[in-house]
Amino acid sequence: MDESRDRREDHGGVADERIGMNSFSRAVPDFIAGKRTPRELLERCIERITARESEVKAFVVLNIEAARAAADAATARYKAGAPLSSVDGCPVGIKDIMDTHDFPTQMGSPAFKNWQPKYDAACVHALREGGAVIVGKMVTTAFACGSTNVTRNPHDTSRTPGGSSSGSAAAVGAGMLPVALGTQTQGSVLRPAAYCGAFGFKPTHGVLPMQGVHPITLTHDHLGVIGATLDDTWRIASHISLTQGSPGYASLNGAATAAPPAVKPHRLIRLHFEAWEKEVETPTRNAFEAMVDKLQRDGVEIIDRNSNAKVADFERSLDGGYIDRSIELTTYEMKWPYEQYVKKFGDLLEKRVLDRMANAAKMTSSRYADLLAGRRAMQQFAHETVTGSDGFITLTAPGPAPVAKDHTGSRAYQIYATFLGIPAFSLPLLDVERMPVGVQLIGMAGGDGALAATANWLATKM
Amino acid sequence: MDESRDRREDHGGVADERIGMNSFSRAVPDFIAGKRTPRELLERCIERITARESEVKAFVVLNIEAARAAADAATARYKAGAPLSSVDGCPVGIKDIMDTHDFPTQMGSPAFKNWQPKYDAACVHALREGGAVIVGKMVTTAFACGSTNVTRNPHDTSRTPGGSSSGSAAAVGAGMLPVALGTQTQGSVLRPAAYCGAFGFKPTHGVLPMQGVHPITLTHDHLGVIGATLDDTWRIASHISLTQGSPGYASLNGAATAAPPAVKPHRLIRLHFEAWEKEVETPTRNAFEAMVDKLQRDGVEIIDRNSNAKVADFERSLDGGYIDRSIELTTYEMKWPYEQYVKKFGDLLEKRVLDRMANAAKMTSSRYADLLAGRRAMQQFAHETVTGSDGFITLTAPGPAPVAKDHTGSRAYQIYATFLGIPAFSLPLLDVERMPVGVQLIGMAGGDGALAATANWLATKM
Repeated sequence: MDESRDRREDHGGVADERIGMNSFSRAVPDFIAGKRTPRELLERCIERITARESEVKAFVVLNIEAARAAADAATARYKAGAPLSSVDGCPVGIKDIMDTHDFPTQMGSPAFKNWQPKYDAACVHALREGGAVIVGKMVTTAFACGSTNVTRNPHDTSRTPGGSSSGSAAAVGAGMLPVALGTQTQGSVLRPAAYCGAFGFKPTHGVLPMQGVHPITLTHDHLGVIGATLDDTWRIASHISLTQGSPGYASLNGAATAAPPAVKPHRLIRLHFEAWEKEVETPTRNAFEAMVDKLQRDGVEIIDRNSNAKVADFERSLDGGYIDRSIELTTYEMKWPYEQYVKKFGDLLEKRVLDRMANAAKMTSSRYADLLAGRRAMQQFAHETVTGSDGFITLTAPGPAPVAKDHTGSRAYQIYATFLGIPAFSLPLLDVERMPVGVQLIGMAGGDGALAATANWLATKM
Repeated sequence: MDESRDRREDHGGVADERIGMNSFSRAVPDFIAGKRTPRELLERCIERITARESEVKAFVVLNIEAARAAADAATARYKAGAPLSSVDGCPVGIKDIMDTHDFPTQMGSPAFKNWQPKYDAACVHALREGGAVIVGKMVTTAFACGSTNVTRNPHDTSRTPGGSSSGSAAAVGAGMLPVALGTQTQGSVLRPAAYCGAFGFKPTHGVLPMQGVHPITLTHDHLGVIGATLDDTWRIASHISLTQGSPGYASLNGAATAAPPAVKPHRLIRLHFEAWEKEVETPTRNAFEAMVDKLQRDGVEIIDRNSNAKVADFERSLDGGYIDRSIELTTYEMKWPYEQYVKKFGDLLEKRVLDRMANAAKMTSSRYADLLAGRRAMQQFAHETVTGSDGFITLTAPGPAPVAKDHTGSRAYQIYATFLGIPAFSLPLLDVERMPVGVQLIGMAGGDGALAATANWLATKM
């Protein structure tokens, strides 16, 4: 991981954004050896928060004193040789659509101003039981499907951090936290992770628990993790999976304290999508092509729409209206509870939600069933296409974070893996315009561990 | 349906329990023709409530005035020739683990005393949007997994009504309501329906939405309906499915205003289970055997463990510890949110929950994955076994409701269809000791409509 880390840390005009410096995974051996303490790690995070939060605005609520108390308790456990778990003492940020019994949970919406849940969401519960240090709640767009929010990209505050897990990614990208939880219904974990120079991971749909997280649409909502390093990201996902689990799903494939050891892929399927021509500009194209060239020089076979008819067919199928179909599916499922919000809050909601509920009222259950069947067919097609390869490789977003305050960037590139429910990483491997650009690695449903091994290789070698 | 209805209405010492008299489905043509009104139907329900509620204790909370206002609004819509839906004006009871914005939702537990949700559960929302008249909240055992509650069997108040959907079944069985919502995680819809002489329906797992209903365990929790007639039951389930839906599931197979027309089964698989020898007493055996004889005389082929090796193998497999495995699965999934309840409420919880959480803490994610895989294998075995037949037929419970105040009866017989996630009806076809005894009809996952057609035939002919 060091080569990749160093490249990121020397990143362009933001050389002080040493996002790996507060890695939790790298600190744990020192905690165990008594050379450092969780409290010291937290204090380094607090220094970064003090330095950057006023301009980045990643947090909705911070509770530094409670975090210090939790870090002190973790410090005492390591000193006693008895940490609670593999995440004991890890500073984490929680997206503000996840219930926390000790922080308000405001969904990024004035409709939930100061709302205080009584219980922790399942993911928060798992982290807290393991001794993680919950530093605060992270800014989201409204209900994780709104258009924008106050958070700014830590690498260039004129740019969006991406959304909807904006605060989670911005805090990690700014080095304020080693890791934060996010959710992805279209592109809400991977896009901000890519824009902020962090690692992002959205496991196979359902593998991490969504209970106690405000829903948008259960067939598309994924819990995900944004981290400073691949190990930090994997460790948090693994802990939640192994200790809490998700009803109806076996635990995260490959779950362990560290990401699976790097395994060189023998074949990757490069996906262009129509966004390559429509949205990706020359500097990003060049950076991605250079990485593909390097992969090939390193002996990785790359197949794509030009060399493989099945890949071409797969891309054409996904580009043939699946973004619209994905939105239609989610619209129907949003009837609960958003129809009630429309009645109760009216003008407090963004136009996007109001429009969707107007559309949902016109949909039929048979149309919904057709869309589900179409999705199942595409899931099967994805499975057949990736079989024999080590994953799909593509961009996470069409380019670096755009200069914008009124939107959070393009959902092209992220929506496909979400729609298909298959695992995806965003790896901070490219630099364009002195900004981070993410490379997306997409795998097979249930094959998260093998994909992480490939991700580890890419993060180390590229 | 008339033959079955009349038998039920003349039932033993409770001949005044004319539970079909307040059927909503039978009243709708009169509403449309202007001969009766929803308000008049509600008033008949209120008469029964006034006569019986003090001893039956089916309701946690009643709001007669709000129900009258809702029934008047429905009356006006029928008069204008514009009912909102197929359930407009239907009096319904809502199990008190389902969120209602206008009633407290107390989960049958002192831990939720006076708790008031802000929003309706998805099922409640669907009914309310359709114009249904929500009369009140129905007694449940604590969190739908407790041992008992105050409700009494309307046919003999020394007996349990069954649980956990005790109030829902008792109110329908007493003729107080044509229909009420319940949930089933082991036997909580079908058992009380059988004990109280009502129809019970637990569709294929997932087909009806559980959002906004307090969870026990998502892989086992089913929304279900208890009704005075099969049509009432089917109409409510269909309305929820067609207008609200359940994320990730096509709508209820066969969903329509009325239950599918009766279709005579050509072959049914009779299941005994080990409870036949261990729990079923002679009067119930005789009543069930008489029904099986009648089915055969009517030309229905009956196969069972004695005549068919595959059926024998299937029964042996299910009897070989699947109740324990089902409980183990649910125990693991109960960690969220019950671990937090244990910490917060301690002694307010029943021993069953405390014991389960102690067991959950000892379970591993790999054991859970093994249990899930075992369940999938049994689901496949059930599918193979029922293929070529029109369903499984067995008892709903080992006999009539027991005389008891400290438990709600045996879960033998109900737990298998719950564990397998396959659709099941309880049909009030038998009389034993002047008490109702239910016949359970179990089908193939997703085959709810065909099963309902068979149920309709049985309800008409047996």
